[in-house]
Amino acid sequence: MEKYFDDFSVGDRMDAGSHTISLQEIKEFAARYDPQPFHLDEAAAARSPFKRLVASGWHTAAIAMKLAVESGVMKATGILGVGVDELRWPKPVYPGDTLRLVLEVVEKKPATPGSHRGVMRTRLSLFNQDDELVFTEVPILLVARK
Amino acid sequence: MEKYFDDFSVGDRMDAGSHTISLQEIKEFAARYDPQPFHLDEAAAARSPFKRLVASGWHTAAIAMKLAVESGVMKATGILGVGVDELRWPKPVYPGDTLRLVLEVVEKKPATPGSHRGVMRTRLSLFNQDDELVFTEVPILLVARK
Repeated sequence: MEKYFDDFSVGDRMDAGSHTISLQEIKEFAARYDPQPFHLDEAAAARSPFKRLVASGWHTAAIAMKLAVESGVMKATGILGVGVDELRWPKPVYPGDTLRLVLEVVEKKPATPGSHRGVMRTRLSLFNQDDELVFTEVPILLVARK
Repeated sequence: MEKYFDDFSVGDRMDAGSHTISLQEIKEFAARYDPQPFHLDEAAAARSPFKRLVASGWHTAAIAMKLAVESGVMKATGILGVGVDELRWPKPVYPGDTLRLVLEVVEKKPATPGSHRGVMRTRLSLFNQDDELVFTEVPILLVARK
């Protein structure tokens, strides 16, 4: 089913699946993109402010994207990302954590007069298996109008 | 050399190395974290608004982090990321592009009275081999004071 800007409402909320993050996956991501000791080595992590090995914040953000894509939301008609605001990581992510994504529509704006698209601010939130918020961000999306 | 909050000034600007992104790397990242056709398959990408295969925006953001870590800036004393604002991708990133990172200090604020840390807003910018801006973001960092 085709989904347009008009089909979204402020306050819409959707559960969008989950992903369990393994120690191996954390180390592989960090080795390539965030090679800091507390993402790569248990002994070094034990001496860090985190006290144990934690996932890169960029890895957590990438998992949010994966779950968003799998949810089908990125198939809305003419969807285009403008940017993302307010990335925050209120709690660390540890090996073995199961992260579940919640998507919300927080603001809709009419596009400029004559435009075939509308602007939508959304909030993506990842919660761990203890229902603690570990990541949140505000993607801004253009979506086609009917 | 230990670097503290007091050692950074608004307007400081640093070139921080470069990374050439391969087709294989783009596909590997996208398969795991952003499985949309225009990041994975040349034929599908040709039919997309991008007209050719492009890197995931989250892949580009991860490369900015990699270059920032390699620059040594994350070794400042007591450094801690608060969050990141204003992620923008003004131009697509294509296979074979060479991305170079520029780091800037855009704002310094005294921390709350009595705190041993200061708050620093920075801007990270990635430029391609044609000096086009392809990615920018505003990380907010806590850094220890002397």
